Amino acid sequence: MPADGSEVGRALVDQHCHSVVGTELAAAAFASLLTESDRPSAVGASPWDSALGLAVRRWCAPVLGLEPFAPVEAYLERRRELGVAEATRRLLRAAGLSACLVDTGLTEAAGLPLLSPEELGGLAHAEVHEIVRVEWVAERATTPDTAAHTWAETVCAALRRAARHAVGLKSVVAYRCGLDFDPTRPSPAEVANAAAEHLSAGAGRLTHPVLLRHLLWEAVDLGLPLQLHTGFGDPDLTLHRSDPSLLTAFVRAVEPYGTPLVLLHGWPYHRQAAWLTQAFPHVHCDLGLTLTHVGTGARRVLAETLELAPFHKLLFSTDGYGLPELHLVGVAAFTDALDAWLGEALPVASEATRVASLIYGENARRLYKLS
Amino acid sequence: MPADGSEVGRALVDQHCHSVVGTELAAAAFASLLTESDRPSAVGASPWDSALGLAVRRWCAPVLGLEPFAPVEAYLERRRELGVAEATRRLLRAAGLSACLVDTGLTEAAGLPLLSPEELGGLAHAEVHEIVRVEWVAERATTPDTAAHTWAETVCAALRRAARHAVGLKSVVAYRCGLDFDPTRPSPAEVANAAAEHLSAGAGRLTHPVLLRHLLWEAVDLGLPLQLHTGFGDPDLTLHRSDPSLLTAFVRAVEPYGTPLVLLHGWPYHRQAAWLTQAFPHVHCDLGLTLTHVGTGARRVLAETLELAPFHKLLFSTDGYGLPELHLVGVAAFTDALDAWLGEALPVASEATRVASLIYGENARRLYKLS
Amino acid sequence: MPADGSEVGRALVDQHCHSVVGTELAAAAFASLLTESDRPSAVGASPWDSALGLAVRRWCAPVLGLEPFAPVEAYLERRRELGVAEATRRLLRAAGLSACLVDTGLTEAAGLPLLSPEELGGLAHAEVHEIVRVEWVAERATTPDTAAHTWAETVCAALRRAARHAVGLKSVVAYRCGLDFDPTRPSPAEVANAAAEHLSAGAGRLTHPVLLRHLLWEAVDLGLPLQLHTGFGDPDLTLHRSDPSLLTAFVRAVEPYGTPLVLLHGWPYHRQAAWLTQAFPHVHCDLGLTLTHVGTGARRVLAETLELAPFHKLLFSTDGYGLPELHLVGVAAFTDALDAWLGEALPVASEATRVASLIYGENARRLYKLS
Repeated sequence: MPADGSEVGRALVDQHCHSVVGTELAAAAFASLLTESDRPSAVGASPWDSALGLAVRRWCAPVLGLEPFAPVEAYLERRRELGVAEATRRLLRAAGLSACLVDTGLTEAAGLPLLSPEELGGLAHAEVHEIVRVEWVAERATTPDTAAHTWAETVCAALRRAARHAVGLKSVVAYRCGLDFDPTRPSPAEVANAAAEHLSAGAGRLTHPVLLRHLLWEAVDLGLPLQLHTGFGDPDLTLHRSDPSLLTAFVRAVEPYGTPLVLLHGWPYHRQAAWLTQAFPHVHCDLGLTLTHVGTGARRVLAETLELAPFHKLLFSTDGYGLPELHLVGVAAFTDALDAWLGEALPVASEATRVASLIYGENARRLYKLS
Repeated sequence: MPADGSEVGRALVDQHCHSVVGTELAAAAFASLLTESDRPSAVGASPWDSALGLAVRRWCAPVLGLEPFAPVEAYLERRRELGVAEATRRLLRAAGLSACLVDTGLTEAAGLPLLSPEELGGLAHAEVHEIVRVEWVAERATTPDTAAHTWAETVCAALRRAARHAVGLKSVVAYRCGLDFDPTRPSPAEVANAAAEHLSAGAGRLTHPVLLRHLLWEAVDLGLPLQLHTGFGDPDLTLHRSDPSLLTAFVRAVEPYGTPLVLLHGWPYHRQAAWLTQAFPHVHCDLGLTLTHVGTGARRVLAETLELAPFHKLLFSTDGYGLPELHLVGVAAFTDALDAWLGEALPVASEATRVASLIYGENARRLYKLS
Repeated sequence: MPADGSEVGRALVDQHCHSVVGTELAAAAFASLLTESDRPSAVGASPWDSALGLAVRRWCAPVLGLEPFAPVEAYLERRRELGVAEATRRLLRAAGLSACLVDTGLTEAAGLPLLSPEELGGLAHAEVHEIVRVEWVAERATTPDTAAHTWAETVCAALRRAARHAVGLKSVVAYRCGLDFDPTRPSPAEVANAAAEHLSAGAGRLTHPVLLRHLLWEAVDLGLPLQLHTGFGDPDLTLHRSDPSLLTAFVRAVEPYGTPLVLLHGWPYHRQAAWLTQAFPHVHCDLGLTLTHVGTGARRVLAETLELAPFHKLLFSTDGYGLPELHLVGVAAFTDALDAWLGEALPVASEATRVASLIYGENARRLYKLS
């Protein structure tokens, strides 16, 4: 169970998550948030029939006053009975987060608006900090008035403004062009040409590799920790092109700048991410999204990561999104897995607590300069 | 042990296997079927000295009336004593299969003819259905009379004829050119040119990437589930080019057609296959060949797959070939591993039975429209 | 614990290791040998905080007369108290190696000289044999007098001389250009042109792909087992370009020559290495460096390798380097993991002993033609 009342629990810093839907969700919408697929389920199939579905029933049902593994219908009925506000409050409190770093680049889930970060923090009793998604900032800064030769300047100004309120930045370049991109910083002329192409194609979703690289280098210049999506995600992504090892040349190019890089998710390339964290001082990783999804596999996946990741380089997160269940499952899966690992690998209680504290929160507090 | 007498056991649908040799096998020939290598073993080494060799001794010896792990010589002697017919009957009955989907693209093993699918079904007490291997059909349809401009038509007609008796199709494009092929359908002119090259090179084994792609798209048009070899196999194959993630662009191109795709084997990329089954409604996977080979590793490999694969997307199979031992080991390894996984992840007996039934047979019955 | 007194222990052949530093190491230098990174640690972080750091405390502290998991400071103090000679002697004896195959291509660690192979063998009470690193020989043979048209001849002569005293060769081509190199043997003209480029660039570190390929083929011609670095290592390396599967075309090209290939380390591609050892008679693998680093993950990583690797193809090694702790941890992690695996997969004591003997030493004695 998540250590909601303990010292360790109180120190949990969720270094990458999203907010939750504040209104009642229909059964189908709820289920759609239990899978990374954005496609309708096959006839007769349900996203509840997955390792994540079982994990929700295992860890969340008791928090709503049901037996673990209560049937899905009973779970949803109980949730409606409590009301979305009370259910959300209970689940987020049980998660026992002390701080949430919220990626504000998603504003709805299953077509419904997400609560503001402040509302999330209020329900969770947690400090809230912002992570700014660079592609989202660039897309919002580009208006019908933006000209090719001013795109870079406009976007750079917007990014700097957004970063003033943020503790870190995030890129989803893995989704937009894969991680096997040219690691060099594009020249101003290349950027202007690319902006012209982007604008003449109607702007919209930013997928031009030159502009994406430009944004990454703008982010590097800002010096805030830069989170990068790696590993699995929704069907937009091509899995083998999200292997974090493909970032190695970029990692080397960033090293002299000192900007910290944080490799998110990782699965099924979490061992590759772990090696990068050992090899390069400025590289960190988390297992958000991953440990939530893999159910009882969380112990194995965390253990595989700790085969090589130094203890000061692994960060806790949930990547919870839309449903407060995902925040709680993320906490429960991670704490269960880390407890198990430490019990085997470090049978000295005081030291195990010290290592757990690093991973649960101290690494993040140091990295993001939280108080 | 395989649940040969239980409800679950009776419902096992082996969604991808081959037939067995019906005549006595010399010790060396028997051993040669315990490895994916087609090379002679090193001096003093035997394929029995492997996880698969131990699994055969563990699961099959008792069925022939010996202790588990009886010595190899004792095992082979007992098998001769019983005679090939009786040994085969005992092993296949113990496997407890209710239906076998037989890939008819291989007709011999270790140089000896395989029993017909009907004979296999008779010995196993199982329904038999046919899976047609598209490259095999194309190779057999190509005669000295085939002209470049009629190749496509000839092959298409042969494929349609073969498919009439089949519940699914299979491609071994992973062996012939790797899975990183151009996913688009080739034009008729490209196909005719490629056919001319293929014919002028003496026809034979089909390795021309354009013709292989053409065949895949003909298969997609037929609408039957299309099985694709992915992951490990014999030395003809280049492992990293059989990563199912390399199929992602093809998977996306097929999606609008609705033709189901089934990723076979997967290892060591079974996690990649699992993600594809979660992301795309028309993608399924199995662990045939894999769970047979990996011995006590079967629990881990199945668990790694279920980290992300939805329960209605994983299919049971053995990929048994040549030796009935491989069908039995396939069943034993899979059922042992799934029982263990469900015991940990879903400690509600009725639900565990429901999920097992999906994976053991219902998913295949639905997908292949079996009665 | 390593079986230092047992039959199995006495038969351990470390088929790939380095020597150790013979002088006192400062705390920082000691710590720097606990990570593959050559960068300074982040502020407040220590390489001791890793799976490897815990493994050293678990397995080595008792050999120095401390409790397992004694604090780092106590460990270092006790080591100083004993003196480097006594500590080294104790640790190497506890490792219980009967033979060491020493890669002589590294001559210092943390800036301090390594003991000679003979000194290492004396401290360890083990036979010592030499493994010659081909790139190191080529670099040392190249002098200001070397001309482009004589480079090949000069290097070839040096390699033949060095090989006279060696039982095997080693290549670090994974570091120099990745394993995705052109597998064909370059022509003499190509080699001369490449040598001219290499010499005009000041010779030094050999990174020219043509010269590296030439060296590999010279090594193949010599017929001694050729070890190849694969998988993780220091930050010079790009991880996905060290996947041993990338060697498949080279493996096929070498097969007719009969020269054995030995894939070292492998992680996180050890399953890929295992398949290559099953598929190709001349391919072997080890888990040196890997099992040392991954701590309690050693059981899992070894088990993943034995999913497919035949028992006569897996070789024991430590890749110990600089610190005798790494030799001992390599032995302890490997023997603990193999005992656990055999206990589960082969519960027949006499046979488990036979398989362990193959892997611990007999495979290496046969392969390297040791007495």
